[in-house]
Amino acid sequence: MELLKQRIEKDGNVRMPNIVKVDSFLNHQIDVDLLDEIGAEFYRRFKDKGITKIVTIEASGIAIACSAARYFKVPVVFAKKHENKTMDDDVYQVTIHSFTKGKDYEAKISKRYLDSSDTVLIIDDFLANGEAAKGLTAMVEMSGAEIAGIGIVIEKGFQNGGKTLREMGICVESLAVIENIKEDKVVFKK
Amino acid sequence: MELLKQRIEKDGNVRMPNIVKVDSFLNHQIDVDLLDEIGAEFYRRFKDKGITKIVTIEASGIAIACSAARYFKVPVVFAKKHENKTMDDDVYQVTIHSFTKGKDYEAKISKRYLDSSDTVLIIDDFLANGEAAKGLTAMVEMSGAEIAGIGIVIEKGFQNGGKTLREMGICVESLAVIENIKEDKVVFKK
Repeated sequence: MELLKQRIEKDGNVRMPNIVKVDSFLNHQIDVDLLDEIGAEFYRRFKDKGITKIVTIEASGIAIACSAARYFKVPVVFAKKHENKTMDDDVYQVTIHSFTKGKDYEAKISKRYLDSSDTVLIIDDFLANGEAAKGLTAMVEMSGAEIAGIGIVIEKGFQNGGKTLREMGICVESLAVIENIKEDKVVFKK
Repeated sequence: MELLKQRIEKDGNVRMPNIVKVDSFLNHQIDVDLLDEIGAEFYRRFKDKGITKIVTIEASGIAIACSAARYFKVPVVFAKKHENKTMDDDVYQVTIHSFTKGKDYEAKISKRYLDSSDTVLIIDDFLANGEAAKGLTAMVEMSGAEIAGIGIVIEKGFQNGGKTLREMGICVESLAVIENIKEDKVVFKK
């Protein structure tokens, strides 16, 4: 997605090693025009898949998922993050490791909002090691729903999350794939 | 807002004492059509105020703020929640007490995304004791920006947050005000 790549080049804040901050338009301040274009692009890529629900994880996935959901005309379900390991009967739950924060957290989705009749598009802002995406995938699988694919805004192609998920047979569509970061500049995969 | 009140009556999950869960359409699963109507309603109520930015707090305020921001054609800035008290130089920061969770947390907004040239609409999903809204108000005041008002989806009129904020001279617009909860049923303020 050219518009997104240009915006990352213009306003992304590169911090070594391998961090690209997009706080000025996606993860802290949100440019709602760009958000709308991102939602439309996910729709173009997945519109023929019979999506019935979009699943994401709080917090920074929510805006993106809602923007896409407007085009698909389906509900969003966002997984909630918890500190504690308490297991409720009525939730799908996984433990996700955050490399950024260096610790584990629990993610939960109520069983009321996802079941085997659903066809799910998973959406998130970043894909690096793929821990969050794998956790969301596992919860959707627990529900018996079909996974139509994973839509990612920015994939760090030099980390292994995308490779692992594609090897699992999942259709992963990333709107911008960063091949590497050289001298504080982002190089996109062609 | 009639559509919202009907939806709360139909799908809200009342749990004594004084809890109304709207997980099925706003806080866990999100109905994007209703979200769009909520955004439009905030626009109708604040469109003449010269809003330049919408400020909210993660996680459940984000979808609502983005929906409104599409109508206002302005960016959203969402405050981030942190566990630790570490104070960065480049943020506005407050401590907010969560009655629901029975503990304090830190909320931060980068100084890069809010300053004295802004006119801000603060948006959140619930207003009860008003701790989050007061925290957001304090951060906007630190920035020197003008507060045009606070837009709330569901106000618990029997708790004191709305009263306190209005006594501070702030224009608080709530789309549904719950006057009380009787025998597991919600009674709205006329």
